[in-house]
Amino acid sequence: MDVAEEDPTNLPTKRRVRLLNRDDRLFHVILAQQFDRELIDHLCRIAEMTRIIADARAGARFLNTLLSHKRAMLYFIQPSTRTFLSFSAACQVLGMPHNDVRDSSTSSEVKGETEEDTVRVLSQYFDVIIMRHPSEGFAETMANKLNTMRRCIPLINGGSGKDQHPTQAMLDIYTLYRCFSPSLAERIRLDPERNLFDGKTIAFVGDLKRGRTVRSLAYLLTRYPGVRLLFVAPEELQISEDILAHLSRYDIEHELKFDLPEVIGECDAVYMTRVQDEHDKAGESGSIDLSRFSLTRDIESRLKPDLAIMHPLPRRTELDTYYDSDPRAKYWDQMRNGMWMRAALIAHVFNVDGAILDHYFSHYNY
Amino acid sequence: MDVAEEDPTNLPTKRRVRLLNRDDRLFHVILAQQFDRELIDHLCRIAEMTRIIADARAGARFLNTLLSHKRAMLYFIQPSTRTFLSFSAACQVLGMPHNDVRDSSTSSEVKGETEEDTVRVLSQYFDVIIMRHPSEGFAETMANKLNTMRRCIPLINGGSGKDQHPTQAMLDIYTLYRCFSPSLAERIRLDPERNLFDGKTIAFVGDLKRGRTVRSLAYLLTRYPGVRLLFVAPEELQISEDILAHLSRYDIEHELKFDLPEVIGECDAVYMTRVQDEHDKAGESGSIDLSRFSLTRDIESRLKPDLAIMHPLPRRTELDTYYDSDPRAKYWDQMRNGMWMRAALIAHVFNVDGAILDHYFSHYNY
Amino acid sequence: MDVAEEDPTNLPTKRRVRLLNRDDRLFHVILAQQFDRELIDHLCRIAEMTRIIADARAGARFLNTLLSHKRAMLYFIQPSTRTFLSFSAACQVLGMPHNDVRDSSTSSEVKGETEEDTVRVLSQYFDVIIMRHPSEGFAETMANKLNTMRRCIPLINGGSGKDQHPTQAMLDIYTLYRCFSPSLAERIRLDPERNLFDGKTIAFVGDLKRGRTVRSLAYLLTRYPGVRLLFVAPEELQISEDILAHLSRYDIEHELKFDLPEVIGECDAVYMTRVQDEHDKAGESGSIDLSRFSLTRDIESRLKPDLAIMHPLPRRTELDTYYDSDPRAKYWDQMRNGMWMRAALIAHVFNVDGAILDHYFSHYNY
Repeated sequence: MDVAEEDPTNLPTKRRVRLLNRDDRLFHVILAQQFDRELIDHLCRIAEMTRIIADARAGARFLNTLLSHKRAMLYFIQPSTRTFLSFSAACQVLGMPHNDVRDSSTSSEVKGETEEDTVRVLSQYFDVIIMRHPSEGFAETMANKLNTMRRCIPLINGGSGKDQHPTQAMLDIYTLYRCFSPSLAERIRLDPERNLFDGKTIAFVGDLKRGRTVRSLAYLLTRYPGVRLLFVAPEELQISEDILAHLSRYDIEHELKFDLPEVIGECDAVYMTRVQDEHDKAGESGSIDLSRFSLTRDIESRLKPDLAIMHPLPRRTELDTYYDSDPRAKYWDQMRNGMWMRAALIAHVFNVDGAILDHYFSHYNY
Repeated sequence: MDVAEEDPTNLPTKRRVRLLNRDDRLFHVILAQQFDRELIDHLCRIAEMTRIIADARAGARFLNTLLSHKRAMLYFIQPSTRTFLSFSAACQVLGMPHNDVRDSSTSSEVKGETEEDTVRVLSQYFDVIIMRHPSEGFAETMANKLNTMRRCIPLINGGSGKDQHPTQAMLDIYTLYRCFSPSLAERIRLDPERNLFDGKTIAFVGDLKRGRTVRSLAYLLTRYPGVRLLFVAPEELQISEDILAHLSRYDIEHELKFDLPEVIGECDAVYMTRVQDEHDKAGESGSIDLSRFSLTRDIESRLKPDLAIMHPLPRRTELDTYYDSDPRAKYWDQMRNGMWMRAALIAHVFNVDGAILDHYFSHYNY
Repeated sequence: MDVAEEDPTNLPTKRRVRLLNRDDRLFHVILAQQFDRELIDHLCRIAEMTRIIADARAGARFLNTLLSHKRAMLYFIQPSTRTFLSFSAACQVLGMPHNDVRDSSTSSEVKGETEEDTVRVLSQYFDVIIMRHPSEGFAETMANKLNTMRRCIPLINGGSGKDQHPTQAMLDIYTLYRCFSPSLAERIRLDPERNLFDGKTIAFVGDLKRGRTVRSLAYLLTRYPGVRLLFVAPEELQISEDILAHLSRYDIEHELKFDLPEVIGECDAVYMTRVQDEHDKAGESGSIDLSRFSLTRDIESRLKPDLAIMHPLPRRTELDTYYDSDPRAKYWDQMRNGMWMRAALIAHVFNVDGAILDHYFSHYNY
């Protein structure tokens, strides 16, 4: 069954077991579909608490001790500065030493070793592998291999191929949480009945066909009925059918659009993306007119006063630097949110999220 | 005098002084010949204790504090992922921050600096240099240079040229210890009179001519009279004469063999190695028939039930992945053993092995 | 106004505000001109205390906790091993985790991101950026950009273009302090009226035109009236006019010289530098006769008995290895001094220098 087509709430037991541990806690973090609403809410809250705790020196030191007895391997075969640094900073927040393999040409692979052997060797030295890899499905394949080994450690997918980037999706949804909820108190003591996304309109703009961040975020948003999604892209770069079918199955309202200025006025959040021309076969995207898919200065008057402007970065011209110091610009915050969310996720995987929760409630009177 | 020919128990005083400190404690770790039986036994015990202590969170934190006031430089001019990561993890186990120089092209050497100046500069910032280098004898030369300097720090050889790889040999012998001794209690309270290797047959298989791990391990095994060594390799890749002469001098029983299936039934341990064709001058090893020097599925029935299957990795076809989940496969354990053994060695160099011993006996009732 | 021409004591308020924080404490560290005498004295004292505290295990651990709640980014786009490792070690002394970006080709810049966006992203994950960059003025430009951002973190210039290298200048002046002051007690309890440089003659030798370390150090030395500077270089590589004008403005005695053996006998310190032929346009420096600008063995008899021999390293033939074990050789010490001075600077930026001072006076009876 194709990953994009399956219904995550009905994941066959066998697949669930492969990704969760015995207490139904996340073990391997591979797919956005693994996250149900309760878990998303929980991780957003842990991320929020981690951020507040880290702000005080004593709190930062408490966090620093949580995973000082573990070690992480960042296996980043595909170049990526910001995701790498974000995970690295998240490890540092939790006091977890880490190491990395970033260039497979310096590794033993030149001596003819299979990547499976490489991952297995890494599992001997480290307590978690955070992996970024150019091949779709590689992270999942490796998680399955690890499950058959005597020393089985968790694997976190930091982006695999064109398909999935679940931790990016989690930081995006955490950013939306922060934009849509009026107060810290509400974010911390989130009522399970409250759906922050109800009635909100979110536009995805740009290269929706080849950007994995939009795909992964769409999976997460199916957890929030009442949200309305606009996919704003030129015909050639529109979102793929499998995502639309997935949204329909969950009764998530969605529309295809072909002009940003026309719809920007309805949006509570706009998620800009750049053209991924590194995936072009023959420079075909160079001939596409992108003028209707850019957030330019001249449409500022149409923006809602509390619009959230997002972008996974790096950007090009689709997002005018004019907005950089506008309070509605949330794309810098996204970066920092990513650090806290990844720390929350790692804390959850190692079962120290409870300690963060306890620390928070014993030190802050919300 | 050639390193391979000299008798380590009779090392001239001058040479001993260069490698040991005033209390006769290891200072520079350069050659397998530096380790006598008492020291090997001691380090295996410290490695075993470190592993057990690290398993508990409080223990891991105790270890984390041992060398948090020191700093290590991993100077790895020759590419190596697994040895690098193993040392790196060992430093992390002991809480010692470390840094690395891995690609000499980004260093000041492009500005015309000698390697001797480079090492001397490193000695100003760090408290130990762990070095991997393509040139035979380079580590020893540098240790001698360091000895003449006002700020003299220890140097640990992480593999130099085709000659020596003493820490690999130490992890291998530690792996054999664990395989040959029936219980943890015995490993910890090892009777100095007890020789775990007495009556054991160990086969070395593959490219014995160019693999430095086999050379270094052979040196260590001379400390255990009663062991029997089989060197199983095609004529062109057989072990070199200097090693055989060294074994004879110590009365270690050894035989050259030319067919693994024929002898595998007698073995208590088999140490597989790959063909090091990167050292070929003109692809000559490509024409060698290796079928009699591989551990294949079809000879499984001949294996002793408690055979230890070892391999320094990376492997190719000489070791069938069929054995990967067999409990007799110890090659993954070797990796992890290496981390503990290197931690033990570093602890010894910095004189904190006593603290590990004390912690162990005060917390565990063996 | 050109940086070289401006009078740092009269920096316009606007510029001061850009580089200092509200308490007039250093915020961004960009230019040697930022350091006045009181601050230089203070930082030398903090460096000296840090070195002494770190020597005891308990002291090292105290230092280790000072910045364990912060994170540093070493953004080193220009290759540099020793400055990189020096800052890295300084971070480790203070317990501050750090990460690095060293090769811009592996970063998102290949996806078409501006360096300004890159720096802004880094500012989200880290608490300080330490930057080395090939472009003159880049560090200052970025500091100004950071000042306009909601999350503004300090930036430390680790060398930018051919112009400034303020932390190198600070380690050089700290090295001179140690050479010129007779006792530790004096260095620690330095009388503000006492000018250690009064009456001292310091010669700068070699490629003075293109070496930024000499430039930056000359700025600092204007803080010490009574010092006498000799610039000893072939015509083509002599110090540039702007530096001479700057020295004249401060009434610092200085002379151009063209023969080292002739003047070496008058010197209290000699600062050797290599020819920076990587800046040659067409190998022009290859034809310059450097024999009169080298510290060779045959002029040893002319050296003062307490001459301080310095060199920023790497060296070539201008500094004979013959002097390496001479107690007057201070070039290895410079390296280690750099680590302590950078730790002092970082401590100052984060306002924990007071804690170092307190710790020192409560533990040592000077």
